[in-house]
Amino acid sequence: MSDLPRRIHIHEEGPREGFQIEPGPIASADKVRFIQMLAETGLTEIQCVSFVNPRRVPTMADAEDVAGAIHQRDDVHYTGLWLNHRGLLRALQTPLHTEGYVRTSGSDAFSLSNNGRNVEESLQEQGATLQYCIENNIPLSGGIVTTAFGCNLEGEIPATRVVERIAQLLDFVEGYGLQLPILRLADTVGWANPKSVATLLGAIRDKWPELRLGLHLHDTRGTAMANALVGLQFGIDTFDSSCAGLGGCPFAGHKGAAGNICTEDLAFMCEEMGIETGVDLDALAECARYAEELVGHPLPGKLMRGGTLTRWRTQ
Amino acid sequence: MSDLPRRIHIHEEGPREGFQIEPGPIASADKVRFIQMLAETGLTEIQCVSFVNPRRVPTMADAEDVAGAIHQRDDVHYTGLWLNHRGLLRALQTPLHTEGYVRTSGSDAFSLSNNGRNVEESLQEQGATLQYCIENNIPLSGGIVTTAFGCNLEGEIPATRVVERIAQLLDFVEGYGLQLPILRLADTVGWANPKSVATLLGAIRDKWPELRLGLHLHDTRGTAMANALVGLQFGIDTFDSSCAGLGGCPFAGHKGAAGNICTEDLAFMCEEMGIETGVDLDALAECARYAEELVGHPLPGKLMRGGTLTRWRTQ
Repeated sequence: MSDLPRRIHIHEEGPREGFQIEPGPIASADKVRFIQMLAETGLTEIQCVSFVNPRRVPTMADAEDVAGAIHQRDDVHYTGLWLNHRGLLRALQTPLHTEGYVRTSGSDAFSLSNNGRNVEESLQEQGATLQYCIENNIPLSGGIVTTAFGCNLEGEIPATRVVERIAQLLDFVEGYGLQLPILRLADTVGWANPKSVATLLGAIRDKWPELRLGLHLHDTRGTAMANALVGLQFGIDTFDSSCAGLGGCPFAGHKGAAGNICTEDLAFMCEEMGIETGVDLDALAECARYAEELVGHPLPGKLMRGGTLTRWRTQ
Repeated sequence: MSDLPRRIHIHEEGPREGFQIEPGPIASADKVRFIQMLAETGLTEIQCVSFVNPRRVPTMADAEDVAGAIHQRDDVHYTGLWLNHRGLLRALQTPLHTEGYVRTSGSDAFSLSNNGRNVEESLQEQGATLQYCIENNIPLSGGIVTTAFGCNLEGEIPATRVVERIAQLLDFVEGYGLQLPILRLADTVGWANPKSVATLLGAIRDKWPELRLGLHLHDTRGTAMANALVGLQFGIDTFDSSCAGLGGCPFAGHKGAAGNICTEDLAFMCEEMGIETGVDLDALAECARYAEELVGHPLPGKLMRGGTLTRWRTQ
């Protein structure tokens, strides 16, 4: 395991991924409290809300209220997700930390269903947004490939196609004189397995050895931690994750349904392997228990129940 | 990932690990039904009950009743766990498939607390049982090292100590003219992480390259699937697991508490990686849902909610 990173960076998405999917209602003040608790754990980046159509995602209708009510720490980036120019403009009106990003997808069908545009059309649309960012000195935070491993509409996504889409995305960005600081590969609907993660990471590394990569994993079928391990074995040092494993599958009945990879479980595994995370595991477990209280049903995170090993080591 | 096994063997322990820990009561007939459902999934080895003191483990007081009521398939081994000579004699009175095995522990304190004897005393006691097996033509199925990675009483267990204990166990068995067909390493209380698994497997492989190894993993802190992946990367082809992730931690409040590694999640990951398991994933997911019904609370398995990928692939 010689390629393990010395330290990982965690992009916490629990408030956005989690509260977006919950039938709710969860009071805006409780969302804010959860975000503020997370900010006390050593996390440095927290995605708080999404600026999407409130008619499509009613649980995010209070995005501006939540964003405005957070007492921000100086050492934490509080961000919001946006999917189109209108969303970006909304984000920019809030006190959240807002940067540009670009998006492609392994699956045209997913792109169509999620954004109403296939990959090609989506890139064209993003050109205007990218131009706006350049003109307004808004830096580019990175890029993401959604459904990079598989898609419920198109099935398996071969690594060769993802490599093509990445090449297209890098060209697109370079066309604006920009470079991607990082590219995140998203297993949007839980198709990845350790072998497919290794195959894709290997293919990308072969072609772009210097491109920094991150992983956005879902634990829909229990493979997220093993997939993350493969990432670590490839030296990947950036992971999106959700406290308590918030997120999950809307059609799964919400009984501990699998969501994003669980922040504190991932951080625990890393710390046990000697990889720094910068987070306080006990404080994160406390946040996870609070998240369960808020949503009113069990969440899949394990560490909040199993506890860290500290108390057994210091006997 | 060149050392991956072509096929894995699963030792299902859900009925024993799970129903042992549940506050119950679960009717004997329901336990039997669950065991019989599991036997229809392609599993070839199912640990059904434990022959332990019913005053210490009241939920196993019906062990003989359950063992006697199972309609056995010819191609499945139905087994029971026993921890001492009295337990072995009870097992032999039932229609279950009963073989000898030997046990050591990374932790003397755990051995004392679990069996009332330290490792040395435990080996002495097992001598009589081994002799009995030899005289009665009862084959030796293998050996197990409990708390091979850590122990809540002794803390971290270094690989060097486990190697010493294994050497002692192999000597002990050879003293009776026997050999271990397999040695299972148990992460009894959820201390293992991918690095410690790799360290221990590497140390054992260095010393005994021909010794067949198995893993018995718990998912107390979310690392079980990643730990299993490391096992697979070392070519390990034998895993103990529990349908639905049954088992779990008695002090965890039973709300989706982490138990053994989940059979169908592990099998799913293997099948997706091209490793044969011989099991029907959909049938196992059905068993997992039935297990949830029996225990009356959510269990941690993911595949039973996420579903296999088959339906998306065959569209």
